[in-house]
Amino acid sequence: MKPNIKEVLCNYKEEDLSEDLIRQLQKAAKKCRLWALTMTTTAKSGHIGGSLSSMEMYLLVYGLANLTPQNVENIERDHVVISHGHTSPAAYAVLSYYGFLDPNQAMALFRKAGSPFPGHVEREVSGIDWSSGNLGQGLAAGVGFGLAQRAKKLDNHVFVLMGDGEQIKGQVAEARRVAVKNCLDNVTVLVDWNDIQISGRLEKVMPFNLKELWIADGWSVYEADGHDFASLYRTLRQAMEDGKPSVVLCRTIMGKGISFMEGTPAYHGKAASDEEYEKAVAELGGSSELLVQAKTYRASDASKEIAKVSREDKVVVDVGTPRIYLPDIKTDCRSAFGKALVDIGAANYGIAGKTPILVFDCDLAGSVKVGDFAKSCPEWFFEMGIQEHATATVAGAASCSGVISIWADFGVFGLSEVYNQQRLNDINGTNLKLILTHVGLDVGEDGKTHQCIDYIGLLRNMFGWKLVVPADPNQTDRAVRWSIGTYGNICVAMGRSKVPVITKEDGTPYYDEDYVFEYGKSDLLRDGSDVAILCCGHMAYRAVEAWEKLKAKGIYAKVFNVSCPLQIDEHTINEATKTGLVVTYEDHHCGSGLGSIVSEKMVELGCMSKLVKLGVHRYGDSGTAEEVIDMMGLSTDKLIKVISRHLA
Amino acid sequence: MKPNIKEVLCNYKEEDLSEDLIRQLQKAAKKCRLWALTMTTTAKSGHIGGSLSSMEMYLLVYGLANLTPQNVENIERDHVVISHGHTSPAAYAVLSYYGFLDPNQAMALFRKAGSPFPGHVEREVSGIDWSSGNLGQGLAAGVGFGLAQRAKKLDNHVFVLMGDGEQIKGQVAEARRVAVKNCLDNVTVLVDWNDIQISGRLEKVMPFNLKELWIADGWSVYEADGHDFASLYRTLRQAMEDGKPSVVLCRTIMGKGISFMEGTPAYHGKAASDEEYEKAVAELGGSSELLVQAKTYRASDASKEIAKVSREDKVVVDVGTPRIYLPDIKTDCRSAFGKALVDIGAANYGIAGKTPILVFDCDLAGSVKVGDFAKSCPEWFFEMGIQEHATATVAGAASCSGVISIWADFGVFGLSEVYNQQRLNDINGTNLKLILTHVGLDVGEDGKTHQCIDYIGLLRNMFGWKLVVPADPNQTDRAVRWSIGTYGNICVAMGRSKVPVITKEDGTPYYDEDYVFEYGKSDLLRDGSDVAILCCGHMAYRAVEAWEKLKAKGIYAKVFNVSCPLQIDEHTINEATKTGLVVTYEDHHCGSGLGSIVSEKMVELGCMSKLVKLGVHRYGDSGTAEEVIDMMGLSTDKLIKVISRHLA
Repeated sequence: MKPNIKEVLCNYKEEDLSEDLIRQLQKAAKKCRLWALTMTTTAKSGHIGGSLSSMEMYLLVYGLANLTPQNVENIERDHVVISHGHTSPAAYAVLSYYGFLDPNQAMALFRKAGSPFPGHVEREVSGIDWSSGNLGQGLAAGVGFGLAQRAKKLDNHVFVLMGDGEQIKGQVAEARRVAVKNCLDNVTVLVDWNDIQISGRLEKVMPFNLKELWIADGWSVYEADGHDFASLYRTLRQAMEDGKPSVVLCRTIMGKGISFMEGTPAYHGKAASDEEYEKAVAELGGSSELLVQAKTYRASDASKEIAKVSREDKVVVDVGTPRIYLPDIKTDCRSAFGKALVDIGAANYGIAGKTPILVFDCDLAGSVKVGDFAKSCPEWFFEMGIQEHATATVAGAASCSGVISIWADFGVFGLSEVYNQQRLNDINGTNLKLILTHVGLDVGEDGKTHQCIDYIGLLRNMFGWKLVVPADPNQTDRAVRWSIGTYGNICVAMGRSKVPVITKEDGTPYYDEDYVFEYGKSDLLRDGSDVAILCCGHMAYRAVEAWEKLKAKGIYAKVFNVSCPLQIDEHTINEATKTGLVVTYEDHHCGSGLGSIVSEKMVELGCMSKLVKLGVHRYGDSGTAEEVIDMMGLSTDKLIKVISRHLA
Repeated sequence: MKPNIKEVLCNYKEEDLSEDLIRQLQKAAKKCRLWALTMTTTAKSGHIGGSLSSMEMYLLVYGLANLTPQNVENIERDHVVISHGHTSPAAYAVLSYYGFLDPNQAMALFRKAGSPFPGHVEREVSGIDWSSGNLGQGLAAGVGFGLAQRAKKLDNHVFVLMGDGEQIKGQVAEARRVAVKNCLDNVTVLVDWNDIQISGRLEKVMPFNLKELWIADGWSVYEADGHDFASLYRTLRQAMEDGKPSVVLCRTIMGKGISFMEGTPAYHGKAASDEEYEKAVAELGGSSELLVQAKTYRASDASKEIAKVSREDKVVVDVGTPRIYLPDIKTDCRSAFGKALVDIGAANYGIAGKTPILVFDCDLAGSVKVGDFAKSCPEWFFEMGIQEHATATVAGAASCSGVISIWADFGVFGLSEVYNQQRLNDINGTNLKLILTHVGLDVGEDGKTHQCIDYIGLLRNMFGWKLVVPADPNQTDRAVRWSIGTYGNICVAMGRSKVPVITKEDGTPYYDEDYVFEYGKSDLLRDGSDVAILCCGHMAYRAVEAWEKLKAKGIYAKVFNVSCPLQIDEHTINEATKTGLVVTYEDHHCGSGLGSIVSEKMVELGCMSKLVKLGVHRYGDSGTAEEVIDMMGLSTDKLIKVISRHLA
């Protein structure tokens, strides 16, 4: 290993690569091929074909990038996104060559459970900026990094390495348009155009015109020989200085460097056998001793001692002063969000040292109430059009590159439509604030396709996402401010309609100036001992109405606002079940939402009682929210009837 | 209403529209504008702007299509897909004009809960072939219909009406490529190019080159004046006879026909007030009496009496003879699926009267075992490339146009990535068989991005989807045959690895020649009274192993294979809880899968016992399935330890 080639390349700005550098890189490519080969044969699996075709691309990009073992933990530097994450052997080999990783560890422990060398590149590996593997996501991640660095007024560059088979995923085209609209000349893409995907030649699998697709979306398109460092460098340098988002289509050969692998789809996802390894090593001029060493190392328990990189960025944000909505005001939670956002914008926009807050919209600014922020903080507002997949990833990636991302959208678009992108944000540990409006049956007359009755049921499949479903504008205000000031992926979900302010029995706001939002804490809105109603969101004010009417009938109910349904506290379940009758009351799918989670908790805690789950049990109608809720059997009167019947 | 204009248009093949037809259509357009306007003002909501700009497109398409009130229930006819489903007022007006609907009902009951006139077009309305509203989905649905009609050797045409704002959704580009690859000259698209979306002019929201995008993907592109019947007809006729998939970009004016709405984004999603209505009616030459009548009708309870269209197609399929896998064979469930598929192909391919079975693949044919089917039934096999969003919708739509669709893919791609498309398939009541391989932690070394640990947790948010998670190759064989022979959306989910054949205690196959798959029935694989293990998929053989080892320790377990986790039978819960200790054992997210559903059922049935939920509690490692399962604490030994500890 020559530690100084990284330093040289990193500062190299010439039009052409020097003869000496070319020689060194060629030597490096041979060594890295050997390492990648050894990794996959040791692991008996892995994608060697594409790793070999991408090798020169990797060496140049990681060489040129201002991303070093020394600055890797700082996010104010160049970024590299690997979209074809299955070419991890090449990535780990090259990162080893440049001193980020130990090649012996990588060769031995690739794809071994517990080791930091996963089959698809992940952020826990030093030098990897985005966990990928699900194809077609990387360009949007790169665009997110590009936007974030731009918002921080930094001149850092983003390189995105892509495969050719993934070029036809729709999300790629969406991301291209975002880059062009935002003039991201700091993003440069390299496509490994080896013309082979798992099922064979591109033309046979799904014909498309690679070049025309990029041109149609307004990118500068370059072509280069992806195995010729001179050609590749010259073209890449031009692309980087083009002044527009640019792509270099790199003509490569699948399996390059190992004769029997070249141009054959078979080695897309198959490792060389021990015998094939011998032959390949001979061609690469190495020794098969490497494989023996790697296998011995792998058989040991060493992998457990190697630390993985963990990342959590610091944010500096002033979340402003809470707004108190008095009971004579009837407004919607969306507007309360919008107002809190404007406050926070005012407290941070243009103020030195504050973390930029990027707000993303998909053509619904008026409905999701980000219009005022867009006017007051124009440089922090991004109109993405009807392109939710790219938006989810752009916003997610940006948020782990030194900014806070906020994406407001209807529930079905911000979550149901992009569930997997939000799962990948979870895996990447991003810092996205997802504001979902129009959740539940409270969506206006749009009908079943627009009713997001699964937001709890979807987010409970994740491990990191937090979910808050505030009951009124006051709690919305506080939850939104808390979410923006707290690191991590947080979803705040709300309906469309105006709702009354939740009050204490004395008529003053329940969520008043003394209230501090605390994640996971339910609130006892009303007390009673005959029955406990557990609810969240706009069902809370209905439950309080029911409490009043039940009291008139001599029935005393507890009403809990369970605003964090993914993390219900033990106390709530204890207190609720003590009444002997628990009613969950939600405009969410009754088989996956609050009622389902309450069931689980009851069993877990051994707190038993009768449980009645009122919720959505079929796709809803198209009508006003009140009509639809009524037809679903979820009106206040229906709640009262059900409780009366069960207590009769 | 002139009932005969539909007949005339439907059989009209001239190059140009006759003067008489133009006059009639112009008159019709005025009437339909009036109706659409009345609908939205009566409902006080709805998208009038785009309805007015699409009106001539609607009149021509529904006029020319061989889709009549008489043949609408037969699927062997032309199809119309409305991708910009929010322009429902225009659709209902035109369908009323051509005799599909009653205009007075439509005007009165638009967007009223319980009525068959929802805010976005839905299949329950006569003349609507695809429920939409979530933008960017319609082209893929049209392509699905086109493929299905082609597979049935029918010459029927498919018209797709689209908005302009939705053109940039990635799924649109994916669908375009599928149409071109399959030479679908039976698909013609019309884009309502009014240049205005919710947030304003297209160029301001997200710049893109509409024409170039279609050209880059190989479509024939035409342009027409979308309000001039002569121009529109002539161009549409050329496009229909072009011999390639063709699109007509229709230059239109948002709000066309009502002066104060023309060209203003404000009326994209806002109805005219009563005052504005008066003014508009005067311009359209109508009487405001219509509005009075509509309001009176709406106030009555009449809507409940109007029947909605319900559709369930008949399929004729021979599911072949089950294959029995003997205990000396160790194979994977994927291969058992592949073999059953080949059998079914052989029993139906090329045989008159059988329903075509279309199999879709996204570049994973080898892994998901559809390669042999592709060879033996080439005309029924569709390689879609890495384009999962379009594939989900194409396959779904095709399956309600007279074919059976089967899509095999990895769990993360066939479900997590396209959750919303599968939700929309559910809403549309399609007949898709979704074969998910590589679910749970059993995915090879691909790591967390590829581990589908949420397939139960996702599908439980739906109402129509059925889910089967077979325990071994025998049950897979039977479940696959059952799913293909049964109408509806059915998912069969399995891991990647080879698994032993589940046997009875006597060593013969548990799922033998007498076994008939029955949806919702769990199977008692082993009996005992100390503890009940509930599992599915490849955890079943591990549980049987544990049963053996526990017996040696004097612990007697019941082992239930709960192969239909979304519908667990009461008997299973009863029997399991009687033991006093229930252990759910799954390689699925432990907060949303089998353990969660079992909790719910226990509370529902009041069957209590201690419940231990063994499952996935963090994102998994990259390693062999065995390594990953072991590290997650899910090995057989761990199961035994947990049970022993709880019984100690």
